[in-house]
Amino acid sequence: MNTKAYGATAPDSGVNPLTIQRRSLRDDDVAITIDYCGVCHSDIHTVENDWGRTSYPLVPGHEIVGTVTAVGPRVSKYKVGDTVGVGCLVDSCGSCPACDDHQEQFCDEGIHGTYGGTDRIDGTPNQGGYSEAIVVKEAFVLSIPDGLDPAAAAPILCAGITTYSPLKYAGVTKADKVGVLGMGGLGHMGVKFAKAMGAEVTIFTRSESKVEEALQQGADHVIISTDEQQMQAATEQFDYLLDTIPVEHDFNPYLNCLKYNGTHIVVGQLTPLEPALNTGALVMKRRSILGSLIGGLAETQEVLNFCATHNISCDIEMLDIQHINAAYERMKKGDVKYRFVIDMNSLRNS
Amino acid sequence: MNTKAYGATAPDSGVNPLTIQRRSLRDDDVAITIDYCGVCHSDIHTVENDWGRTSYPLVPGHEIVGTVTAVGPRVSKYKVGDTVGVGCLVDSCGSCPACDDHQEQFCDEGIHGTYGGTDRIDGTPNQGGYSEAIVVKEAFVLSIPDGLDPAAAAPILCAGITTYSPLKYAGVTKADKVGVLGMGGLGHMGVKFAKAMGAEVTIFTRSESKVEEALQQGADHVIISTDEQQMQAATEQFDYLLDTIPVEHDFNPYLNCLKYNGTHIVVGQLTPLEPALNTGALVMKRRSILGSLIGGLAETQEVLNFCATHNISCDIEMLDIQHINAAYERMKKGDVKYRFVIDMNSLRNS
Repeated sequence: MNTKAYGATAPDSGVNPLTIQRRSLRDDDVAITIDYCGVCHSDIHTVENDWGRTSYPLVPGHEIVGTVTAVGPRVSKYKVGDTVGVGCLVDSCGSCPACDDHQEQFCDEGIHGTYGGTDRIDGTPNQGGYSEAIVVKEAFVLSIPDGLDPAAAAPILCAGITTYSPLKYAGVTKADKVGVLGMGGLGHMGVKFAKAMGAEVTIFTRSESKVEEALQQGADHVIISTDEQQMQAATEQFDYLLDTIPVEHDFNPYLNCLKYNGTHIVVGQLTPLEPALNTGALVMKRRSILGSLIGGLAETQEVLNFCATHNISCDIEMLDIQHINAAYERMKKGDVKYRFVIDMNSLRNS
Repeated sequence: MNTKAYGATAPDSGVNPLTIQRRSLRDDDVAITIDYCGVCHSDIHTVENDWGRTSYPLVPGHEIVGTVTAVGPRVSKYKVGDTVGVGCLVDSCGSCPACDDHQEQFCDEGIHGTYGGTDRIDGTPNQGGYSEAIVVKEAFVLSIPDGLDPAAAAPILCAGITTYSPLKYAGVTKADKVGVLGMGGLGHMGVKFAKAMGAEVTIFTRSESKVEEALQQGADHVIISTDEQQMQAATEQFDYLLDTIPVEHDFNPYLNCLKYNGTHIVVGQLTPLEPALNTGALVMKRRSILGSLIGGLAETQEVLNFCATHNISCDIEMLDIQHINAAYERMKKGDVKYRFVIDMNSLRNS
């Protein structure tokens, strides 16, 4: 089916109108008209081929909220008119140890992403949510609970699950002190989750000028990471650090802020770790560094429900698809509080 | 009390005869005549001031097995004639979170080591086990179970607990595949513990010539870490890697050998990690890096009992104290299978 979309045709093309094909419904498929799509920094990396794996044309978008328009004959969980979500994953092998554990993001076949890969069955390119409609296998469709604003729910599907999953995996409770590094889309969700889990939450920021903003995000305390005295006072104070900083940074000053048995959780940085990691700081206090990547489908449903229960949503700025390239430029400067969400009516009505 | 010992007087002095003072018994002290003392690589680092913290004269040795010769009036666990051990710790604050957890090695006051620090009460230098006798607070004295050879038990007090503790903390079971990096005093104990816990154990070694030796250590499999094909075949095969390599090395090829959720346990390297750690390998498979340092007193008693139950002891080479400097030279070349233990009669009778 011809489907309006916005996508990139080359690393320097930006994102522009194009037409893609959505498949006809398979037996276990759900057809969704897209109402909202969040804008993730991964979208920019993929559009601009920063990771060297992009095939063009490429339609980004993996924080999708929409309305069911049709279902295949074997679909039982959804019916026409339901408000549903699609996150970062659209398929998995279903039989490897990770899939057995409901951790489809770690599937032995690799990630079957909402965009950037190919369909497991027919090999056609998967195209993302900057489009008016999408067709997705039922098992990879999420239910958006009543009471969640559909637009503000969209970023939960990536920024939300990415920060919720490791806090849950680590077992954060009200007894814990959690530090959050980075104040963007991920960081501000991490603060909300850690608070909802009962933890005492501190935001680390580089700039005195961001203290008030950090407190507005709900943090109990703020530490200026460039202030040696404050960092010294933070020595061995934290059970967990949730590190959402997406660019290269020095882990060592933060490691010292962990108590014995403490864990530095990495969800942002994917590049080699310079300056060199001080393994002595790990050994001498039984500290650990833990990587984490989004979450599985069951856990993504769980975080949506958790958000509904705890009245948590993402702080968003809505935009029309026609302004997406300007939005990318603003995101590169960190100029968004805290997530752009595209109103997809702007595409449908164009 | 004048006590014969061997110690260093300068970074380049080697280890030579000297006389030290052991304190008179406090109410909760145990006096021990030392029968055996294991030789740890930390002894060499401290003697030669590699860590820049050595005060001379310095008597090394923290793998001590001996016989109780006297006890203070408040001592209840030990009596004259008992075979006992002293490991890396001789005191702790007793009231910080780590001490409350019986993890005295992470005491908020820092490590009160068997040698290299000062006594918590009178501030005199703590001197180690290369001596004919030692006086230690009851709570830091271990019981050597019947059935353990006292000489071969000595290295359990450092090399043993260092490898047992993280395998236990990580929760290794018979369902796990464990890789052991390094084939020295620590590595060969790690193999024995992981096997006793039921795991399938693989030794990683750089050299084809060490394959037979690795199998003799009890490993189920051997991987030549310099063979790209073998390393490729090991991709995502291991639940845990126990990394006992004491010198700088590249973690990245090993990280790839971990399954999703896998853990790279560091007990050897204490230096900054070069080449740079690939944080992407952590994130993309929820892997972690965990540091670990010896173990607490309760756990050290546990590992001694575990060794007695499972008929595990250290493979040792006995030597007279007069040959200690030559032993150091051999250890620097990795030429010992797998731990030197000093027969302290050689000191007493000299």
